[in-house]
Amino acid sequence: MEYTLSQIHSITGGTLVGDGNVTITGAGSLEGAVPGDISFVKGEELVKKALKTRAAALVAHREIPETGKPLIVVDNPFLAFIKFLQVIVEKNTAQPKGIHPLASVSKGSSLGKDTSIGACSIIEEGAEIGNNVTIHPLVYIGRNTRIGDNTVIYPQVSVRESVTIGKHVVIQSGTVIGGDGFGYLRVEGRHVKIPQIGTVEIGDDVEIGCNVTIDRATMDKTVISRGVKIDNHSHVAHNVIIGEDSMLIAYAKIAGGAVVGKNVMLAEDVGVTDHAVIGDHSVVGGGANVYKSIPPGSVVWGSPAKPIMEEKRLQALLKKLPEMRDTLKKLSKKFSQ
Amino acid sequence: MEYTLSQIHSITGGTLVGDGNVTITGAGSLEGAVPGDISFVKGEELVKKALKTRAAALVAHREIPETGKPLIVVDNPFLAFIKFLQVIVEKNTAQPKGIHPLASVSKGSSLGKDTSIGACSIIEEGAEIGNNVTIHPLVYIGRNTRIGDNTVIYPQVSVRESVTIGKHVVIQSGTVIGGDGFGYLRVEGRHVKIPQIGTVEIGDDVEIGCNVTIDRATMDKTVISRGVKIDNHSHVAHNVIIGEDSMLIAYAKIAGGAVVGKNVMLAEDVGVTDHAVIGDHSVVGGGANVYKSIPPGSVVWGSPAKPIMEEKRLQALLKKLPEMRDTLKKLSKKFSQ
Amino acid sequence: MEYTLSQIHSITGGTLVGDGNVTITGAGSLEGAVPGDISFVKGEELVKKALKTRAAALVAHREIPETGKPLIVVDNPFLAFIKFLQVIVEKNTAQPKGIHPLASVSKGSSLGKDTSIGACSIIEEGAEIGNNVTIHPLVYIGRNTRIGDNTVIYPQVSVRESVTIGKHVVIQSGTVIGGDGFGYLRVEGRHVKIPQIGTVEIGDDVEIGCNVTIDRATMDKTVISRGVKIDNHSHVAHNVIIGEDSMLIAYAKIAGGAVVGKNVMLAEDVGVTDHAVIGDHSVVGGGANVYKSIPPGSVVWGSPAKPIMEEKRLQALLKKLPEMRDTLKKLSKKFSQ
Repeated sequence: MEYTLSQIHSITGGTLVGDGNVTITGAGSLEGAVPGDISFVKGEELVKKALKTRAAALVAHREIPETGKPLIVVDNPFLAFIKFLQVIVEKNTAQPKGIHPLASVSKGSSLGKDTSIGACSIIEEGAEIGNNVTIHPLVYIGRNTRIGDNTVIYPQVSVRESVTIGKHVVIQSGTVIGGDGFGYLRVEGRHVKIPQIGTVEIGDDVEIGCNVTIDRATMDKTVISRGVKIDNHSHVAHNVIIGEDSMLIAYAKIAGGAVVGKNVMLAEDVGVTDHAVIGDHSVVGGGANVYKSIPPGSVVWGSPAKPIMEEKRLQALLKKLPEMRDTLKKLSKKFSQ
Repeated sequence: MEYTLSQIHSITGGTLVGDGNVTITGAGSLEGAVPGDISFVKGEELVKKALKTRAAALVAHREIPETGKPLIVVDNPFLAFIKFLQVIVEKNTAQPKGIHPLASVSKGSSLGKDTSIGACSIIEEGAEIGNNVTIHPLVYIGRNTRIGDNTVIYPQVSVRESVTIGKHVVIQSGTVIGGDGFGYLRVEGRHVKIPQIGTVEIGDDVEIGCNVTIDRATMDKTVISRGVKIDNHSHVAHNVIIGEDSMLIAYAKIAGGAVVGKNVMLAEDVGVTDHAVIGDHSVVGGGANVYKSIPPGSVVWGSPAKPIMEEKRLQALLKKLPEMRDTLKKLSKKFSQ
Repeated sequence: MEYTLSQIHSITGGTLVGDGNVTITGAGSLEGAVPGDISFVKGEELVKKALKTRAAALVAHREIPETGKPLIVVDNPFLAFIKFLQVIVEKNTAQPKGIHPLASVSKGSSLGKDTSIGACSIIEEGAEIGNNVTIHPLVYIGRNTRIGDNTVIYPQVSVRESVTIGKHVVIQSGTVIGGDGFGYLRVEGRHVKIPQIGTVEIGDDVEIGCNVTIDRATMDKTVISRGVKIDNHSHVAHNVIIGEDSMLIAYAKIAGGAVVGKNVMLAEDVGVTDHAVIGDHSVVGGGANVYKSIPPGSVVWGSPAKPIMEEKRLQALLKKLPEMRDTLKKLSKKFSQ
């Protein structure tokens, strides 16, 4: 990549201070930047670091004349920097418009304008793909599945039949949407499969990481609401509902029929038991297992999950267990004398 | 979909009561059903709900005249309903028979009758595919692998070389069968790979969820016995044996050489240490780690896994730890006076 | 397979004792070997078992005349045996050299000598593939990604753009290298994606199991150093660094920016919190969660991770908790009288 600072300024907005003709060949953090990079100064507390960076130019919250570097001054430097990063990523991952000759697109499907269907990708009958959608190579889109405008699906994703995906959705590689929910009826000692005729509905602006699974509902639907972000290796079982703007860090394990409210944060490796309800705006600490519903605004940790202060007190007490045992022994001994 | 109730009756069996010409356009639970749906009444305890459902018709254990709805009366309504669901799912997921022009089928492989090989699926030399097998698009079947009749393999599955898969098996997307077991020999501070020349054997009626891994044995074979059901993100390491009709809920982590008996139930996120033996008919609670073998009929929980009552007592005691500490402090103080 | 013992001897080296013309049709452990197999005797402690094996021939550390079987005598029998296993596996998994007609190789990419590109594999523009590389079918190699000599990539792997992979690397099926790191900036209650412009660098002799995810860095790079071995379902987040010869057993969960030193062993299902540093030569027990950095040479276990003796003492004390509570009750009662 190669941009002049002026070109970057036209992406970020704000005020350009200094030489707009300087050439920028990369982007980096203040510490990680190499000569030619542009970096950013989030706020006053980072000005000291900014004086030491090797970056050629900065996006900053104010002028920093001591650096002697050209700057773009904006209110939210990180957000402005993100706009520029987005342009870089779109260039790096752009796919040619149209249908690759090695793709298999059913005549019974419909494709929007400016859509890209990569090599060895399969679009089955009745699928509806919106405008400006990017289907990378080696993707499977099942029958009657609908995909909204501007959505990007990376290689090796499977979206099974009759799934609905919103606009501006990103699905990373290795993820499976609409696999069968895990439901069996025990009959004479054997497990008879309950066929899963439900589906999955994914709202706008959702992002789903790599090797995630989102199972279709037994009947009705599994719902991932607008703005939800799901990290790698997570599992959303049949008939789960995830509320708007919630965030599931890696290895979130959401069992069948559970409900995760809006604006919930599940840290890494959290388990939620089937049919449990996590209230809106709750935070669940890493590795916690939520066995029972928790009210809105909860902050819980541990296994079983409990209010975080309770869990922290428990962990502190566990450290004192050897001492407690010693005291108890001494007391017993004295008392029995 | 559109069926008359009479058509559904010919699938479910039982006794048709009322108008067989009513049109059914979907299936749902008693609560979730929308007009046009058929639903089912498992038993007497659900009759009350049945009076409120919006379903157009019911499969039920007896006549329920108060509903005013046509019914199919059968001994096991859920099982009868499942038969109908199965017909729906088979229609939704049916693939055209024959070999897709974008598939790559080795001349040295053999295909049974009425088999479907999807677009961009690969069948390598020496593979033997049975009758009425459905290989969805983007599936890899390695050299000399054998797949039994009526098996269904969904998109993006990899089955490596020399694996044996039984009849009526279902493998969901993203799953890998026969990847190398994780075995290394330490030589002069480095890890030298132990080539994994064993294989995997999967019995009849097995179902394997999405993004599961079942590793091939170092030598000999990894065995998944008849009727086993394995949920998403599970991992069966090299040389493991899983007994008949056992059920592994999501994120089962079965380490090398472990043996899981028959009719065992592993709840979500259970770890079984290498070479441990889980006795037949055991139940392991969610998140438990089984570090030592447990006898048949065990019911264990916790980490390390222990008899479930012991684990529950421990959890109850942990809640009393703050109180215990307080009592101890008071006693110490009094006693030292 | 069919080899004479002499042919195997030419692979393993050492001294051939007895009939070199005996036909070997397989390989197995001492217990698992069937007639026609070759097996190996690691050391003196296994000589007893060697007397009972059904194997047709042995690789052993010394002559064992009582067996009456032909032997290959070598200093390190397991290592010699591994050499032979390697030959078997290479035969079983060999792919034809050249580009399969159903592959899609960009004219703007470069391929080394003796390289194999399987059916429905995609090599994007600017990718550089070394000599003697095996890309199995259904693999995706993104733009400007470089792959070193002798590397093997199994079916259904995704390597995204601008990734660097070393020589003699093995990547098992279902794995994703270079997916976006999970980074968002909260703006007015919503999560704005931080575009991930960094990359992934994988050293020589690395092996990565099935369904693993290694995310690209936000900026700069995620690093997997020479000789690292990573088991199934593991997750290496953005900007993580894993040191040389470290081993990550299944479900290793390494959060963003963490550093795992050299020669570290993470047992199954270990979590490492973001930016934590695991010192060189450390060992972390199964299921442990490392929330804080630990110095070189640590041996830790538990959640939170602590020195292993401390965790073991804690577990022993927890077993005594019921007894402690009883004693405390008795003391309280006596004392209050």
